[in-house]
Amino acid sequence: MDRNDFGTSRRALLQAAAAGAAAMMPGVAFAARAGDLAAIRRAAEQGRDAAIARIQAWIRNPTIAAEKSRIDEGVAAMSALAREAGFQTVRTVPTGGVPAVFATLDVGAPKWMGIYFMYDVKQFDPAEWSVPPLEARIVDRPGVGKVIMGRGAVNQKGPQGAFLAALHAFKTSGRTPPVNIALIAEGEEEIASPNFLNAIRDPQVTATMKKCVGVIIPTAGQSANGNATISLGAKGAVEMEIVSSSKSWGRGPAHDIHSSQFARVDSPAWRLVQALNTLIGPDGHTPAVEGFFDRVTPLTARQKALIAEAARKSNEADAKKALGVQRWINDESWEQSLIRLAEQPTINIQGLVGGYTGPGGKTILPHRATAKVEMRLVPDMTKDDSVAKLKAHLAKHGFPDVEVNVTGGYGPNQTPEDAALTKAQQAVLTRAGITWALNVRNAGSWPGVVFTGDPLRLPAGQFGLGTGAGAHAPDEYFVIESINPKIAGLTEQTMAYADLLYEVAAQG
Amino acid sequence: MDRNDFGTSRRALLQAAAAGAAAMMPGVAFAARAGDLAAIRRAAEQGRDAAIARIQAWIRNPTIAAEKSRIDEGVAAMSALAREAGFQTVRTVPTGGVPAVFATLDVGAPKWMGIYFMYDVKQFDPAEWSVPPLEARIVDRPGVGKVIMGRGAVNQKGPQGAFLAALHAFKTSGRTPPVNIALIAEGEEEIASPNFLNAIRDPQVTATMKKCVGVIIPTAGQSANGNATISLGAKGAVEMEIVSSSKSWGRGPAHDIHSSQFARVDSPAWRLVQALNTLIGPDGHTPAVEGFFDRVTPLTARQKALIAEAARKSNEADAKKALGVQRWINDESWEQSLIRLAEQPTINIQGLVGGYTGPGGKTILPHRATAKVEMRLVPDMTKDDSVAKLKAHLAKHGFPDVEVNVTGGYGPNQTPEDAALTKAQQAVLTRAGITWALNVRNAGSWPGVVFTGDPLRLPAGQFGLGTGAGAHAPDEYFVIESINPKIAGLTEQTMAYADLLYEVAAQG
Repeated sequence: MDRNDFGTSRRALLQAAAAGAAAMMPGVAFAARAGDLAAIRRAAEQGRDAAIARIQAWIRNPTIAAEKSRIDEGVAAMSALAREAGFQTVRTVPTGGVPAVFATLDVGAPKWMGIYFMYDVKQFDPAEWSVPPLEARIVDRPGVGKVIMGRGAVNQKGPQGAFLAALHAFKTSGRTPPVNIALIAEGEEEIASPNFLNAIRDPQVTATMKKCVGVIIPTAGQSANGNATISLGAKGAVEMEIVSSSKSWGRGPAHDIHSSQFARVDSPAWRLVQALNTLIGPDGHTPAVEGFFDRVTPLTARQKALIAEAARKSNEADAKKALGVQRWINDESWEQSLIRLAEQPTINIQGLVGGYTGPGGKTILPHRATAKVEMRLVPDMTKDDSVAKLKAHLAKHGFPDVEVNVTGGYGPNQTPEDAALTKAQQAVLTRAGITWALNVRNAGSWPGVVFTGDPLRLPAGQFGLGTGAGAHAPDEYFVIESINPKIAGLTEQTMAYADLLYEVAAQG
Repeated sequence: MDRNDFGTSRRALLQAAAAGAAAMMPGVAFAARAGDLAAIRRAAEQGRDAAIARIQAWIRNPTIAAEKSRIDEGVAAMSALAREAGFQTVRTVPTGGVPAVFATLDVGAPKWMGIYFMYDVKQFDPAEWSVPPLEARIVDRPGVGKVIMGRGAVNQKGPQGAFLAALHAFKTSGRTPPVNIALIAEGEEEIASPNFLNAIRDPQVTATMKKCVGVIIPTAGQSANGNATISLGAKGAVEMEIVSSSKSWGRGPAHDIHSSQFARVDSPAWRLVQALNTLIGPDGHTPAVEGFFDRVTPLTARQKALIAEAARKSNEADAKKALGVQRWINDESWEQSLIRLAEQPTINIQGLVGGYTGPGGKTILPHRATAKVEMRLVPDMTKDDSVAKLKAHLAKHGFPDVEVNVTGGYGPNQTPEDAALTKAQQAVLTRAGITWALNVRNAGSWPGVVFTGDPLRLPAGQFGLGTGAGAHAPDEYFVIESINPKIAGLTEQTMAYADLLYEVAAQG
């Protein structure tokens, strides 16, 4: 999952006992649920070490879609994890790319709940890490607590492991889940899910998923101060390489040549600079692609009010410190920065690579240069329309030969504030005594549009307690035992998933 | 040496015997010289295998200034090569960077001749080569002949090895060189000679070099068709990195962060694109730095006439094929392309590197991005003035924080057409039956300004027969035995250097 760092409100977390929390619920259903949750909690506590070991083993088996590495191993591990957690059917679903895994746990309940997993992880450079990134070491992190550190720890194997731990706890405590569960696990999330819709379109997957009340992606959703966020949507993301080359230009050298020749031979690298320069406004961040904002739906008054509330309840200084940022774009306010996170579509340069990139210099005229770029989209922008506008813009500005090679992506997703799934999330968090806020839209992206869009049109959202850091970065970690009492450790995370299943079952 | 590929005229090469060639010279000096040259030729033929082995051993010992690798080994090899060739004094000259080596061969002749060597080589990527780049294999190259293939083969160890072979031939034939020789060898040519002037300023080096009639850098100076070029100058080159970073900007993230944050956090990568875009005109090649052309001295009518002659005598199709170029800048003519090579100062992008540069994408907002850039300068531009103008331009256009980190460089050099050294070169080529042309100015660069400028103010130029290709590129090679009878093999190259020493001695 492509996380963002959205700071929310600060309030004490009450690690409410299931019995106490259940006092908020009426009648017979409540009594059964309270008893079940107590038994499940005991099982979760007994299964804690096994759950940690399960997450560690998963981290040690990294599937990296960008490098097409360990795909078979990733499918096998994902399938085994599902089977061991109690799923009765587990199937590999071809997508045309890295396959998906689909699993069902049908207990004969009236309702189905959808769960989205990703089993791939982002690339990493061990030289940048303080520990080997694939050992999944338990590390005492000062000021944080005990964490599992490794690639994929928080993004997304740790939270997914906590969800699986809940199913194990149902099983070992002899309790039947209150809903049927459909699990769809993707292996290409980190390359922007280029083929995931093909998995959804599989007839069995479509038919089963359509029965679901909604889809949850397990997430370590508490910020550093313990607050939780219920995201009502996420921006879309489209990954691409923008390439200037002599081959497509018909000018410049066919291969890298001596740089003195630039006196008389055209330069694809300068052409890339000039083409890129047309894509961004003079302020250095506003997309200048013609028509890019045509389909942008402004935030509603309600959405802006929610953001204003989030701004009041969260700490700007903490966010700036975590990001290493001294000032926001245009020296804007904290609230305005949060509005931008939700509302602003972007065209970001992830990387520039062309010609000689090693130490020192090398007197060459490169025949090719590339920018790795990603667009973030907001409702009602779409992937295809945005890419088409980008290409048309380049052509109109005299760069028809500059290639736009899209490698993956999807549009934005949005779920109504009053969806049953959203209400269930709110109830679970409130009962657990955790301060939560509605997040209008996550600036980070996940392929929720696969669920919120055609053919399923389901509510979809991220859910989970606990925290972590370092997604896509060195020293990624997932907290299993927090120094901060407001942050859930592994067992409380597990219990939140168990409670969510009951709440989804209970919601009208 | 930083070569260029300047195509010159086409005419038969007569591999004139020394005796026949000497028939063009009058009197007693001629008779002595003819006899000496015949003996030296026999020695050169006998020493050919040893000369090849010497070049091979040198290639196997690569000093790379950019990586500060094998510097001690390079100094030791250079010193041993000089001693073995007969130099009586050999000294390591500190420069503040990679040291130079200075050697003298004083035979009590009335005249001194200066020789410039470089003992460093350019970086290389073995994956791009058809043979291991440090084995210095003898390869049969179709259509070319027997070549030594390896990094440094033509740039510059092969030609320098041919010069050393001439001194060996003097020694083994018992002949005394007709001039004293001062050899200054640099170890940082490939990083644009940042400290070489310090070697020249060494009191012993200055005093000895000042006695010289001029300085020659040995070069495989024949083009593929056998023509030779006498260069009257070369552009200057200044290497730098242009860096945009959050640290110096005070905006953007202190480290790479998740790319979704670009909605509210500034991007140093986009800033680099915008800053670079101000440096070049809309045509994608004309420098747009304010005042950049102020000191440019236009070519004279004589210089333009020489270029027009060179254009008539050379083959545009061959040059385009070698470069992999379909059209010159602005679809200009062959003659205009040659004028640009001599006259046009440039600002070239050697490489772009920032953020994520590996396979696929990575959703980060980079905290830093760099362009590797080099400027090529023509008379009377200077390094310091050009760098100052670049910095002032960036500041004026709103990018005062974008760093210009100069790593090396030097200004242009120019030697008069009527210098004794130039005339000696012409005489040797004519006597060898080789078609030659005056090259007004080499587009490639070498630190000749160190000799033509203060404190020495000497004529300086490249000289040598033979050919090769691939300087700074994969599969670099130096021809030792040519299929084309117009191209000198190793022995003829060696003899040309011997003859040059006689001709310099003879020149009024």
